Amino acid sequence: MTPEERFASLGLTLPPSPDPLGVYKLLLVEGDYAYVSGHGTLKEDSTWIVGKVGDDLSLDEGKAAAQQVGLAILATLKKYLGSLDNVDHVVKLLGMVNCVPNFTRHPYVINGCSELFAKVWGEDKGVGVRSAVGMSSLPEGIPVEIEAIFKLK
Amino acid sequence: MTPEERFASLGLTLPPSPDPLGVYKLLLVEGDYAYVSGHGTLKEDSTWIVGKVGDDLSLDEGKAAAQQVGLAILATLKKYLGSLDNVDHVVKLLGMVNCVPNFTRHPYVINGCSELFAKVWGEDKGVGVRSAVGMSSLPEGIPVEIEAIFKLK
Amino acid sequence: MTPEERFASLGLTLPPSPDPLGVYKLLLVEGDYAYVSGHGTLKEDSTWIVGKVGDDLSLDEGKAAAQQVGLAILATLKKYLGSLDNVDHVVKLLGMVNCVPNFTRHPYVINGCSELFAKVWGEDKGVGVRSAVGMSSLPEGIPVEIEAIFKLK
Repeated sequence: MTPEERFASLGLTLPPSPDPLGVYKLLLVEGDYAYVSGHGTLKEDSTWIVGKVGDDLSLDEGKAAAQQVGLAILATLKKYLGSLDNVDHVVKLLGMVNCVPNFTRHPYVINGCSELFAKVWGEDKGVGVRSAVGMSSLPEGIPVEIEAIFKLK
Repeated sequence: MTPEERFASLGLTLPPSPDPLGVYKLLLVEGDYAYVSGHGTLKEDSTWIVGKVGDDLSLDEGKAAAQQVGLAILATLKKYLGSLDNVDHVVKLLGMVNCVPNFTRHPYVINGCSELFAKVWGEDKGVGVRSAVGMSSLPEGIPVEIEAIFKLK
Repeated sequence: MTPEERFASLGLTLPPSPDPLGVYKLLLVEGDYAYVSGHGTLKEDSTWIVGKVGDDLSLDEGKAAAQQVGLAILATLKKYLGSLDNVDHVVKLLGMVNCVPNFTRHPYVINGCSELFAKVWGEDKGVGVRSAVGMSSLPEGIPVEIEAIFKLK
């Protein structure tokens, strides 16, 4: 199956492709790589999932929020690259969790995005390097922001 | 107009090119790309703008601080590359705001840097991908730190 | 002396090569570059140094923790690249310190890692660009997380 076919088989719905919240591009192709801006928890109805993980949101709500960020990134990839099939593999994610100061489960939360990408591009090509860290705040009060680099075909 | 001419037309003054605050280089050229270290709010008199956005500093003072970081980055580019004209375009910014935990306007703050770069290299080449996020603290108590990647000519 | 010989001369012991804490790879080679995931303060006994700098940990304990992160990164480099001699130079570090909100000495802390790399690959090749910033929390409660890019030979 292709990445597009694998995504279709998941039964998930993409949010609208996000607009920038400031003076930046959502995606920039440099040579064989696509650099992707920090994306947030954009929902199908164009609102955001908001809240702090460990306070407003539970651990699993945080993980679901990270999956939603992954879906927003997929929407951007489809808009700017035409198809998920034009991505060869995930190079790198920086996963940032808006959470309480004693939070310790950032990797579990960001897995919400990483597991989605592993389903789309496979266990090898869908998984790159990653950092998962805790922020004191994020734009619009979103619980997760993720930036990414992808290798193109 | 060239980037140097555009910068001159803005009537802004560059701070002195910053010295490293630790064991790192301010700029490293890798192939066609210049990697730039996290820069702070260095002023013309070699002191820093300090304070937390949303507490010591207002939203617009935060944005002005981000412009000052942009000026410090320009000073580094001129020192190590000779001229702003040697940059083809902005690839990526990571904009980090030292702010209170309920802050939500990180993109507005980091626009202070992004709008400066858009004036210097133009609306297309001066604007790359970006993340704008909230830190619980930054070196020296500065309100904004920004790291960058530029594509060289 | 080679990097391996220089490291041996330091009398330091590497921790075991870390396992991922989630769905990611510890190292990915892209062309001539090795991208390295965020690493933590893994000790020889496979436990973590934990605590917040400026609260549980002193400034110098924070710096020692950053050196431990550097050792964990070296363990990963040896496992995936075979030898530290296969690295030509350090390109970039992102040094993230889990610290109290009024902390200001992030560069001093991250020097714990940077000084180690400078000893292994030398004052020029062991030192790249860097950002050093303050996080409100990190996975497992570790005080320092560092991600890196290295240029291969």
